[in-house]
Amino acid sequence: MTTTLIDQLNWRYATKKMDANKAVPQEKVDAIIEAIRLAPTSSGTQPFELIVVTNPEKRAEIRAAASDQAQVTDGSHLLVFAAWDNYTADRIDEVVDLVTQERGELPMLNAYYENLKSNYLPRDASVNYEHAARQAYIALGIAMVAAAEQEVDSTPMEGFNPRKVDEILDLKARGLRSVVLLPLGYRDASGDWLLPMKKVRKSVETMVSTID
Amino acid sequence: MTTTLIDQLNWRYATKKMDANKAVPQEKVDAIIEAIRLAPTSSGTQPFELIVVTNPEKRAEIRAAASDQAQVTDGSHLLVFAAWDNYTADRIDEVVDLVTQERGELPMLNAYYENLKSNYLPRDASVNYEHAARQAYIALGIAMVAAAEQEVDSTPMEGFNPRKVDEILDLKARGLRSVVLLPLGYRDASGDWLLPMKKVRKSVETMVSTID
Repeated sequence: MTTTLIDQLNWRYATKKMDANKAVPQEKVDAIIEAIRLAPTSSGTQPFELIVVTNPEKRAEIRAAASDQAQVTDGSHLLVFAAWDNYTADRIDEVVDLVTQERGELPMLNAYYENLKSNYLPRDASVNYEHAARQAYIALGIAMVAAAEQEVDSTPMEGFNPRKVDEILDLKARGLRSVVLLPLGYRDASGDWLLPMKKVRKSVETMVSTID
Repeated sequence: MTTTLIDQLNWRYATKKMDANKAVPQEKVDAIIEAIRLAPTSSGTQPFELIVVTNPEKRAEIRAAASDQAQVTDGSHLLVFAAWDNYTADRIDEVVDLVTQERGELPMLNAYYENLKSNYLPRDASVNYEHAARQAYIALGIAMVAAAEQEVDSTPMEGFNPRKVDEILDLKARGLRSVVLLPLGYRDASGDWLLPMKKVRKSVETMVSTID
């Protein structure tokens, strides 16, 4: 594909009706996952995990916890972004270990992450979770671009009961909290009321100001 | 450019040293802004504004409020993502007006946003701000991709004093709070210690689990 990012952003929309009979090929899912994996995050901590749910029963349960939004089961793959419930010394040490393994011992690296620990660890878990969730949103934005590049439809969803989804996927035991859902699939063009609608965005004049 | 998203994500890095003598051309800045404008947000509210700062004095002040990080002034353009400090009826009504203007009167539209108001308006301002800030992070992720597509370097920055930046840019009076900074510029290849380093990311096995 040689489309530009702007083309991709104009092509995509929050698909309301997906074709339940059309599955996204694994190589396209893998390309979207790779973009999520490469997404930048604060201090390289990548403080979230991705759960890829294809299991029909699990997706039905999640749909029930997500205001019965049909894309959860009509799509072929459900991406669940699940952020760390807190920053911990162990989690940050694992990041340091990985960086050391890839780049070798660097004295400034250890000092940097020791400082990070002294900032993060005394904070409330809720503050750290919010920070981790924001990082997941960077990856969410990039995932939607990745899907569009693959000509795969996606629907970002915040409208779900996170506690229920955490239960369904047993996330609490893993120190994770579900942040946002992203079903992947293909638009059912004849059944989607939103598809023919004009994309609405604020003007540059409304959103952007300059200080020259 | 015909590079893929994965190429772009591999090309980009959190540039540590920018060439203070090389400015990003306006058409590239405009392409990055257009991607931010097109970024999806929850219920289409686009609950943030973008402030593009080129003014040297203002950038020097912001640099002082950002642990003296040199990219703030070595880059040619500083993007400041500033989220709504709260959701208000007026702000949501403006969104409804814009959608109505672009798509025509739709009864379900009004019902949808009335419901949104009944959910958002009783919440603490801090909860609403966090929600708005997450939307800005979607756009941040897409902005970093847009910059890479334009072969422009960028450095996402959370390490700044938001209260001071809000003061410098007089954001409080506009009901905005600075969320994240993104200087744009060009890498100074000879002066950047991070450039030769291997990009470090967790493995798919570490980050991704599947429920089939």
